[in-house]
Amino acid sequence: MPTPQVTNFADADPSDKALLGGKGAGLAAMTAEGLPVPAGFIVTTAACSAYYDTEGVISNSLWDQVERAVTGLEEQTGKAFDDLSRPLLVSVRSGAPVSMPGMMDTVLNLGLNDATADALGDLTGDPDFSWDCYRRFIQMYGEIVLGVEGDLLRGGKTHEATRLGRPTATESRELVRDLQRSISNRTGHIVPAEPEKQLRQAIAAVFGSWMNRRAIAYRQLEGIPDDLFTAVTVQAMVFGNTGPTSGTGVVFTRNPTTGEPGLWGEYLQDAQGEDVVAGLRTPQPIQALADLDPGAYEQLVAMGDQLERHNRDSQDIEFTIEHGKLWLLQTRAAKRTGRAAVRVAVDLVNEGVISEREAVLRVSPSRLEELLHPLVQPDNTTVELVRGLPASPGGASGIAVFTADEAVSLTEAGHAVVLVRTETSPDDFHGMVAAQAIVTSRGGVTSHAAVVARGMGKCCVVGCEDLLVDAEHQLFRTPTATVTAGDHITVDGTTGTIYLGEVPTVEPVLDSDFETLMTWADNFRRLDVRANADNSHDAAVARSLGAQGIGLCRTEHMFFEGERIVAMRQMIMAPNAIARAEALSKIEPLQTEDFEALFTSMDGLPVTVRLLDPPLHEFLPHRNEIADQVTDLKLQLTGATTLATVNELLGQINHLEETLAQIERLSESNPMLGHRGCRLGVSYPEITSMQARAILTAAVRCERNDISVQPEIMVPLVAFAAELEHQHQIVTEAAAEVFQREGHTVDYSIGTMIELPRAALTAAEIAETAEFISFGTNDLTQTTLGLSRDDSSRFLPGYVRRQIIQSDPFQTIDQSGVGALVRHGASASRNTKPTIKTGICGEHGGDPASIDFFHHSDIDYVSCSPYRVPVARLAAAHAAINDGRD
Amino acid sequence: MPTPQVTNFADADPSDKALLGGKGAGLAAMTAEGLPVPAGFIVTTAACSAYYDTEGVISNSLWDQVERAVTGLEEQTGKAFDDLSRPLLVSVRSGAPVSMPGMMDTVLNLGLNDATADALGDLTGDPDFSWDCYRRFIQMYGEIVLGVEGDLLRGGKTHEATRLGRPTATESRELVRDLQRSISNRTGHIVPAEPEKQLRQAIAAVFGSWMNRRAIAYRQLEGIPDDLFTAVTVQAMVFGNTGPTSGTGVVFTRNPTTGEPGLWGEYLQDAQGEDVVAGLRTPQPIQALADLDPGAYEQLVAMGDQLERHNRDSQDIEFTIEHGKLWLLQTRAAKRTGRAAVRVAVDLVNEGVISEREAVLRVSPSRLEELLHPLVQPDNTTVELVRGLPASPGGASGIAVFTADEAVSLTEAGHAVVLVRTETSPDDFHGMVAAQAIVTSRGGVTSHAAVVARGMGKCCVVGCEDLLVDAEHQLFRTPTATVTAGDHITVDGTTGTIYLGEVPTVEPVLDSDFETLMTWADNFRRLDVRANADNSHDAAVARSLGAQGIGLCRTEHMFFEGERIVAMRQMIMAPNAIARAEALSKIEPLQTEDFEALFTSMDGLPVTVRLLDPPLHEFLPHRNEIADQVTDLKLQLTGATTLATVNELLGQINHLEETLAQIERLSESNPMLGHRGCRLGVSYPEITSMQARAILTAAVRCERNDISVQPEIMVPLVAFAAELEHQHQIVTEAAAEVFQREGHTVDYSIGTMIELPRAALTAAEIAETAEFISFGTNDLTQTTLGLSRDDSSRFLPGYVRRQIIQSDPFQTIDQSGVGALVRHGASASRNTKPTIKTGICGEHGGDPASIDFFHHSDIDYVSCSPYRVPVARLAAAHAAINDGRD
Repeated sequence: MPTPQVTNFADADPSDKALLGGKGAGLAAMTAEGLPVPAGFIVTTAACSAYYDTEGVISNSLWDQVERAVTGLEEQTGKAFDDLSRPLLVSVRSGAPVSMPGMMDTVLNLGLNDATADALGDLTGDPDFSWDCYRRFIQMYGEIVLGVEGDLLRGGKTHEATRLGRPTATESRELVRDLQRSISNRTGHIVPAEPEKQLRQAIAAVFGSWMNRRAIAYRQLEGIPDDLFTAVTVQAMVFGNTGPTSGTGVVFTRNPTTGEPGLWGEYLQDAQGEDVVAGLRTPQPIQALADLDPGAYEQLVAMGDQLERHNRDSQDIEFTIEHGKLWLLQTRAAKRTGRAAVRVAVDLVNEGVISEREAVLRVSPSRLEELLHPLVQPDNTTVELVRGLPASPGGASGIAVFTADEAVSLTEAGHAVVLVRTETSPDDFHGMVAAQAIVTSRGGVTSHAAVVARGMGKCCVVGCEDLLVDAEHQLFRTPTATVTAGDHITVDGTTGTIYLGEVPTVEPVLDSDFETLMTWADNFRRLDVRANADNSHDAAVARSLGAQGIGLCRTEHMFFEGERIVAMRQMIMAPNAIARAEALSKIEPLQTEDFEALFTSMDGLPVTVRLLDPPLHEFLPHRNEIADQVTDLKLQLTGATTLATVNELLGQINHLEETLAQIERLSESNPMLGHRGCRLGVSYPEITSMQARAILTAAVRCERNDISVQPEIMVPLVAFAAELEHQHQIVTEAAAEVFQREGHTVDYSIGTMIELPRAALTAAEIAETAEFISFGTNDLTQTTLGLSRDDSSRFLPGYVRRQIIQSDPFQTIDQSGVGALVRHGASASRNTKPTIKTGICGEHGGDPASIDFFHHSDIDYVSCSPYRVPVARLAAAHAAINDGRD
Repeated sequence: MPTPQVTNFADADPSDKALLGGKGAGLAAMTAEGLPVPAGFIVTTAACSAYYDTEGVISNSLWDQVERAVTGLEEQTGKAFDDLSRPLLVSVRSGAPVSMPGMMDTVLNLGLNDATADALGDLTGDPDFSWDCYRRFIQMYGEIVLGVEGDLLRGGKTHEATRLGRPTATESRELVRDLQRSISNRTGHIVPAEPEKQLRQAIAAVFGSWMNRRAIAYRQLEGIPDDLFTAVTVQAMVFGNTGPTSGTGVVFTRNPTTGEPGLWGEYLQDAQGEDVVAGLRTPQPIQALADLDPGAYEQLVAMGDQLERHNRDSQDIEFTIEHGKLWLLQTRAAKRTGRAAVRVAVDLVNEGVISEREAVLRVSPSRLEELLHPLVQPDNTTVELVRGLPASPGGASGIAVFTADEAVSLTEAGHAVVLVRTETSPDDFHGMVAAQAIVTSRGGVTSHAAVVARGMGKCCVVGCEDLLVDAEHQLFRTPTATVTAGDHITVDGTTGTIYLGEVPTVEPVLDSDFETLMTWADNFRRLDVRANADNSHDAAVARSLGAQGIGLCRTEHMFFEGERIVAMRQMIMAPNAIARAEALSKIEPLQTEDFEALFTSMDGLPVTVRLLDPPLHEFLPHRNEIADQVTDLKLQLTGATTLATVNELLGQINHLEETLAQIERLSESNPMLGHRGCRLGVSYPEITSMQARAILTAAVRCERNDISVQPEIMVPLVAFAAELEHQHQIVTEAAAEVFQREGHTVDYSIGTMIELPRAALTAAEIAETAEFISFGTNDLTQTTLGLSRDDSSRFLPGYVRRQIIQSDPFQTIDQSGVGALVRHGASASRNTKPTIKTGICGEHGGDPASIDFFHHSDIDYVSCSPYRVPVARLAAAHAAINDGRD
């Protein structure tokens, strides 16, 4: 059978969406189900393809088929084009096989002209109605088919006449004439009076819009092939605006916010859909229909059930009631919140509609995150200050503070605070812990602020370019406002919006549906999911969210709190290894306690501890801070009146200048590529040694308390296998010392973080020493692309806009570059050592698209921030199911 | 025939160096040549191997052979061990197949004891001589064979008795007793009296020293296998210290500094070699021997010729004359300067001794550099201040200056200056141009200072860690001195030494021998050699040194001079594209002139111009400079007495603070990975456009003047193929504009610099747009290894010391990491486009070891700083010859 170019709804095969388009297939399906759908036919994608084959001509053969279909429609409806006793009006809509913004949309009321408008007025006894329809038709047709700018037709007189309600027939008649005149002036054509001509032009316009610029750009962006083509559906009009027994509405078969079963939606009596959109009248909840027309309501409930079973998903249904008769105009899978998605998926399994596998696929991993964070109430009317990059989801309010110390002290005084900084550094950590939310004017979604905030499940917005922080004066400026310390602001990390004042937030609930769905997901996935957590609290959160271990514990955060930073600075200033060791010995018992707490939280699960990574200067005070103090003291000096004061001030200046000199000595042009990672451990083996002792002493103590430990010691930033060998030996020696002293031995392993291209390229050699490798894809992205994550927010958005890259490579892994290195590294290391464990501990470990890539790259586990663990579990399940390997 | 464990010189096969050791083979060869060599035998490496097989025992069978060899020696010499009428004395020396520091060296006069010492005294009529020999023997034996610390034996009485000349026999007798007592106290043994025992212990000691710690460490470092083993040569003693008709000396067959033919060396009458070394007496030039003993001198000349012809190279010969009889003790290839190496190689070809191919291989490329720079006079006695890394060879003196501006103004005032900085930036460029030499306290051999200095062929020492620059007070401190502005210093860039005061330098001469050798080299090499040059002067120098084009012209240096930097800063501060274009239009004509001059210098050769690369903030003044000015003004403010002054000062402060804010906005955490390279061209297409117009306008003008141009426009720092496509389009449009305007079209090509791992990994895709690619191996090393070249000098030396890496990866390419990317990139891009041109434009382009790697990596050309061009040409020839592909 040849592919039909035209088919009526009843004859079409609803499963052939490629031929019928999404809209046409939906209508055909409803027709096949025996549901009350206004009759109509589909001009298929095959016809569109033929149209382009003949360079934009509707062939005689196609037009013959359309005419036959119109005749069929006339027979079915008992109406006819230009029949003044029963005029046939139709809607014409585009409908591609995939959802396609940018194309021509809808022309309603096609078939009207002066004569049929009058006739319809006579028939309905409501010429205001029929002429209003006609005016709308002329306007839509002019804009959509003839390509006149919408503003030109919607503005001026039309706007005047329609803005307060439906115009009279006389007024509409005037408007129609004016519109035709405008259209003619603009295009040299008017809207034809003959319905056949109207239809022919409308079909050609839909076909033509497939190749307009916006549609082509959209397809390029989304990777949709040009040769899918669009179909056109032509359907008899029904009218909800014909009196009190008519109306129109939209219903969801389940609550799209909560997923709760039961009709949810709106109904507007004596109205067309357009009126709802225009906001001229306020619709009522759908339950109102139960009182107005119990029969129609019952019918709607039953049809909703039927459509749900048939389409195997919660539906979003458009309907019209014309003189008490219910017509369904469209049905589609309902859009829903993450929370609703979970509940609907689980309920549909319990109702026997879908399988567990399908339920897992029904929930998008990225939507899952919504469940885990409080949300800024969506429909708030608060003043929006500025927008940045949504770095960590959730919503929080608090008073603006500009330093970490202030964040802590105000929090201790009982205030909720939002920390606002140009950017953050590890020095700000205590302030970030204290704050409810973090805002930075610089940095991208993987900047320090973003990473740490996500790790803490704390709401964060970064890269607010229009927000200028003036920390000195304790204020920030936006184009519209100046916010000073103490003012309340609200941060919406889900959308990236900052509001002035307090906006209420909605708390998340992790219900049993969530647990059920995650259990199903876990049954499918191949990848393990661990969490990046630096302390026992985060570890406990991660564990409660299903983490199967800690994939990355960054020990540097342990060096900042309280007296530790003092000892750390002593160590950095130490003139030799002995003095360094002495300073380290003050830190060692504290680190040991930290590890003990962490291991206890993760009883029975593996914990990967990364040795000290950041360059030492990060632990020193900021240069500018000290320099400003020096300047202040020098200013005081000019006002000093006694020799004692002068001497005192000079002494202070001297001391500060020595500190400055030390900071200068340690300062680096490119700290990212500087003296950090295992390079520190090679230069100062006593640091590695101290950390290894702390980890393994904690492990021994845990085992003595019947806590099962699996410590994995990770050497960071290895470029050369010999670096790892060097560190391996130091750790091994420290282990021997601890086990000897404690009289107890613990199993542990030593591995490395692959975060430099050279390490990935030489993974075969590195794997000779490493028992596990974990790809630090953040730094690997920075080095492979030569792209600083802190600095690139200035130009990366432009790159995405210009389509030089498809997405931020710090969010979704760059498959051709960084991904190629990950694959090479994983396979080369496994060649050397088949038992090697391979993981991902960069931000990409929590990104669904990246997780899919890792699933295919022979990786054993991904590790992500605690609050992304469920996202990663679900994404891993999706990857496995889509791979057919579940 | 079984491998002999012992063989006399005459029976040995001189070509079997592996068996005889280097020393033994040389003696066997001279013996075979009929030259007067004291008789002797060799205990071979096979014997040493057997010694280790039996765990350190000299087997009876070996000892039997040694005894037979001793008997043979006794027959040959007519002397015998312990024969009081003709006592046989021998030397025992180690001699491995390769030169091996760290092993036992030499025991002379073996065979002496109380009786033979007396007998020798009687025979020679000189008991002072014989007992002095005996004392020396006891001392050497004690130290070398019995392992007593040398100081213990050389100090005290021995020192007292010998420091003023030869002791009397009586004194020596006393010393021998004392020495034996010391040795016995220390070891429980004395030096045995029996010559056979002496010999047996000495041979065992030589064998044993093969496995001492120093020798093992040396072999590990040099990659010498342990199972080469060492031989022992045992040779009859001859004595140069037996009166005026005796003596000892060392001669070179050609001058080792200049290569001039003719004996060159020293002779010391009535002496043993030891006396020369001890510096007790000053030897005479060898020509003195012509007067003292014309026959011996003639003989020496003839033997030198004979040895040269036989060994096919200039020789370094040790000899002794005993009672008028000339004996040769050793010959080996003479060590020589680069200049001598060239002359000797060319002369030997002209003399028909070696082939051109051999001549090319005889000169080490790295030594060639010495010929191209003035040198600090080697034997100066000036005070050495400090040592750093030798970054760019040559020597220069001048007065110390601490800012670029001062360097310029003092140079203009007629002074020679040395610019001393903590480190340099592009801002210092004009000062570097003006200075005779550059010294920095920070940075490695590929730091900005080093790279720019080498590019200019200017002497430079970097990373002087013990040199603290205090620019504010215009001075620097070293551990021993403080040098203030105006003091003279001398910089030796060849050794990395800084001297206080002026040290004379020696100017280089590029003679016809150099040209001849380079012509031969060019006939062998496959790789083309281009130069990195930024202006027509450097280009002309490069061309005179044989460059076949410019592989890298860095256009950013063109933005710094005079009014250009003003326009550049205007551009950076410009609020929009129009203002930017306006500022750029001031630079365009100047750039056009620059390119015209450059193309003219390179008439007929290709010139690769790289578009603007550094981040824009490099063109702004330094933050600290402005901040200091602000501080100064604030201090002035406190002393201001009129409102007018206050207002004036506040105005200035305001203006500076605005500039500071701009600097802050543009500042980056990791500029190396920041907004630079083609990222600038993507953000500000008008910069690319301006540069393309300037390049092509210059090209058109040149062609009109009959100058042949081959411009190659290089887009820097591409990570994504789409970036190159974007820039390609802008350049193409600019070209069309220029060609249209000028009515003349020029052939040009567009390519890219591969300096990021991602670019190398995706070279196949990039090659679709690029007509050439050039690997920027400096930045590729930084990103692949995650190693900042500016910051790594702090720990890289430690890495080399700890043998984590074998060499500085910024000097010699890291083959497994960066090299792997280069190979992948070259082959992948050639797969896409077989005609693509591939080059290297990092510092590695001038490094011989790296050039060998590139020769094997399907690279078309290397590009290096002008003064390294000859080095690269020679290294490329070596690579081709060694490859067998010449």
